[in-house]
Amino acid sequence: MASHYDVLGIGNAIVDVIFAASDEFLLEHTIAKSVMTLIDEFRAARLVDAAQNATQSSGGSAANTMAGLASFGAHGCFVGKVKKDRLGREFAEDLKRIGVQFDTRMAAQGPSTACCIIAVTPDGHRSMNTYLGACRELTPDDINSAQVGAASVLYVEGYMWDDEHSKAAIRKAIAAAKGAGRKVAFTLSDPFCVGRYRDEFLALMKGDIDILFANEEEAKALFEVENFAPALEAARAWDGLAVITRSEKGCVVADPSGAVHMQPAEPVAKLLDTTGAGDQFAAGFLYGLSKERSLTMCARLGSIAAAEVISHYGARPEQSLKALAAKAGL
Amino acid sequence: MASHYDVLGIGNAIVDVIFAASDEFLLEHTIAKSVMTLIDEFRAARLVDAAQNATQSSGGSAANTMAGLASFGAHGCFVGKVKKDRLGREFAEDLKRIGVQFDTRMAAQGPSTACCIIAVTPDGHRSMNTYLGACRELTPDDINSAQVGAASVLYVEGYMWDDEHSKAAIRKAIAAAKGAGRKVAFTLSDPFCVGRYRDEFLALMKGDIDILFANEEEAKALFEVENFAPALEAARAWDGLAVITRSEKGCVVADPSGAVHMQPAEPVAKLLDTTGAGDQFAAGFLYGLSKERSLTMCARLGSIAAAEVISHYGARPEQSLKALAAKAGL
Repeated sequence: MASHYDVLGIGNAIVDVIFAASDEFLLEHTIAKSVMTLIDEFRAARLVDAAQNATQSSGGSAANTMAGLASFGAHGCFVGKVKKDRLGREFAEDLKRIGVQFDTRMAAQGPSTACCIIAVTPDGHRSMNTYLGACRELTPDDINSAQVGAASVLYVEGYMWDDEHSKAAIRKAIAAAKGAGRKVAFTLSDPFCVGRYRDEFLALMKGDIDILFANEEEAKALFEVENFAPALEAARAWDGLAVITRSEKGCVVADPSGAVHMQPAEPVAKLLDTTGAGDQFAAGFLYGLSKERSLTMCARLGSIAAAEVISHYGARPEQSLKALAAKAGL
Repeated sequence: MASHYDVLGIGNAIVDVIFAASDEFLLEHTIAKSVMTLIDEFRAARLVDAAQNATQSSGGSAANTMAGLASFGAHGCFVGKVKKDRLGREFAEDLKRIGVQFDTRMAAQGPSTACCIIAVTPDGHRSMNTYLGACRELTPDDINSAQVGAASVLYVEGYMWDDEHSKAAIRKAIAAAKGAGRKVAFTLSDPFCVGRYRDEFLALMKGDIDILFANEEEAKALFEVENFAPALEAARAWDGLAVITRSEKGCVVADPSGAVHMQPAEPVAKLLDTTGAGDQFAAGFLYGLSKERSLTMCARLGSIAAAEVISHYGARPEQSLKALAAKAGL
C-alpha cells in the first residue's frame, strides 16, 4: 500500500504561553529549570497571571515537529486532543494554515485546551509548566488505524505516557503502524518523563520502536548512567536507530548495526530560546529519512532546523526550513 | 504489501472432550442445551469424570475454522494460548500437522490448557462446557502486529470477550489489520456470549468489523429481536457483510449495499453432531472470499464444509474439503 503521509505524529495538543523570566522568577515561583513539570489548572492560572509580556502560540512537542516537517515540504498529519474553545480552534487553524492535516474530533465538553507556560531565562533555557487539560481526553477511539497505516512513519512523544487513555491510544496506533509494516519513531520528551516511565519505554524499545530521539539528559536517565559514554554504548547495543542530541555539542546517531555517526551543531548567531530545539531537530531528521537521505544528511537537516528555532522565541520555525536546507545545499 | 496468509485466526485454544449423552444427562448435570457455558476447573473435572466413552480432539472455534481453511488448501495462521502441558502440545501438533502456522508462545506455568466438555444428544445438538484455563493468559504481547498485517483477513471469535487480556489482544490485532488495510471478520460465537457483550459487539461493528458471522439465535440476540425477519433487516441496515446461518434452513448473506443472497443447506445423509458446524461454515465462506468468489459461491463452500462436519463426531473436517469442493464443481 502506498503511503499517503511522510509522518503521522501523535502528541499532546498544547498552546504555549512564552515569556522572558529571570532565574529569580523561577525560584520565586518554584519552577524546575530546563525541564517539563505537570501542573494543575489552578497553578496554570496563577503562572499565567505572573507572566509579563507573554506571547501565545500553538505548541506541543509532536505538533511542533509536524510543523517543522511541513516547513520542509513534507506531507504530515497530526493527532491530538483540544477542546472546542478559543485556544483549541486557534491550535487547529494554525496546523491547517501550515499544511498539516488535523482532523481529531475536538472535545465538546470537559477540561479546556491544554497550555504550557514557558519561562525563558537569559541563558536561552526554557522551563515548561504544562496543564494537560483536554489532552487527557484523547482515547483509542481517536486513532484511525487506516490513517496511521497510511503514514511511512508514526511519530510519538513520550509525554503521552502521562495519561492512561493517551497511552492506550498510542498502543493502538503502534499496532496499526506495525501491521502496515511502517516505522515507529519515539521521542523520550524529558528526563523526568523518562524517570516516570523508564521501564515501559525500555519495554517499548523491544520490538515496538524503530527510531528513538533523545537528548543527552534523557538518554542518561533512560539507561540510568551518569555520563554520556555509557549512554551511547547502551544506545549502540540497542537494535534500533538511536538519535541523541547534545545541544551545542551536536548530535550522535547510533544505527542498528552499532555504527556511530557524529554531527557538529549548526552555528547560531544568537541563542535566544531553546524551546522546540529537540522538536525541530526531529523534524529535520525525519524529513531526511522520508527522502531516504544518509544518516549524516538527516543529522545535518535536523541541526539546521534546530538552529533556526533557537534563534527566536517560539517552538515552531519562522523561516522556511525548505529554503534553509536548499541554501545549505541539501 | 503482499499478504502471506489468507486468514489469521485468533481464538481460544481448546481441547474438546466429546461424548454422546441423553437429554436426561444434561438435566442431571445442569448443562444448558445447545449453547456454551463457562465452567471452572472443579466442575470441568467432575464433568470429565461423568462423561462415558469420551473422545478427545483439538478444538476451539477459530482454531476449527483455521483447520477447515487448511483442508480447503488455504494458507492460515492461528494465534491462541495453551499451556506447555500434554494437551497443549497435542493442540499445537494437531495444527502444525494439518498445515496451520501456530507459533504463539506456550505458557510455562499457570492454569492448564483449556478444555471443552461437549455433550452430544441424539438430536445431534452439542452442549458445551468450557474451562478457559490457559486461554486467559493470551495478552497483547502475544500479538505480532506485522504478522496480523500480513494476513488478508483477520478472523476473531466473540468468545475472546470473556477475558480482559484476550480482549485487549484482539483490539491490538484489529488495529494492526486496519492499519494494513486488511479485512476483519468476527463470529458472534454464541447467543449467551452476545448477551454478555452486546453493546461492545455493536460498537465494534461501527468501523472495526467488515464481515460478521452469526447463526440465527446469535443474530436475534445481537439485535434484540424475537424473529428472524427483523434480525435480517437490522443486518441489512449495517454497512458490513453479514453472514447468518440457519441450520437446515441454509444461510442468508446481506452485503454492504443491503442486497440479500439466500442459500439452501447442503443435504446431509445423517446428522450426527453439530459441533463445529458454524466454524466450518465460516471456513468455507472465508475460503471463497480469499479466492474472490461470488457471495453465492462463498455460501455454497460454507454449506459443503458444514455438511461434512455434522456427518461425524468432532469439530474439524475428516475428509478433504478441497476434494469435496472439487467434487461439487466449485
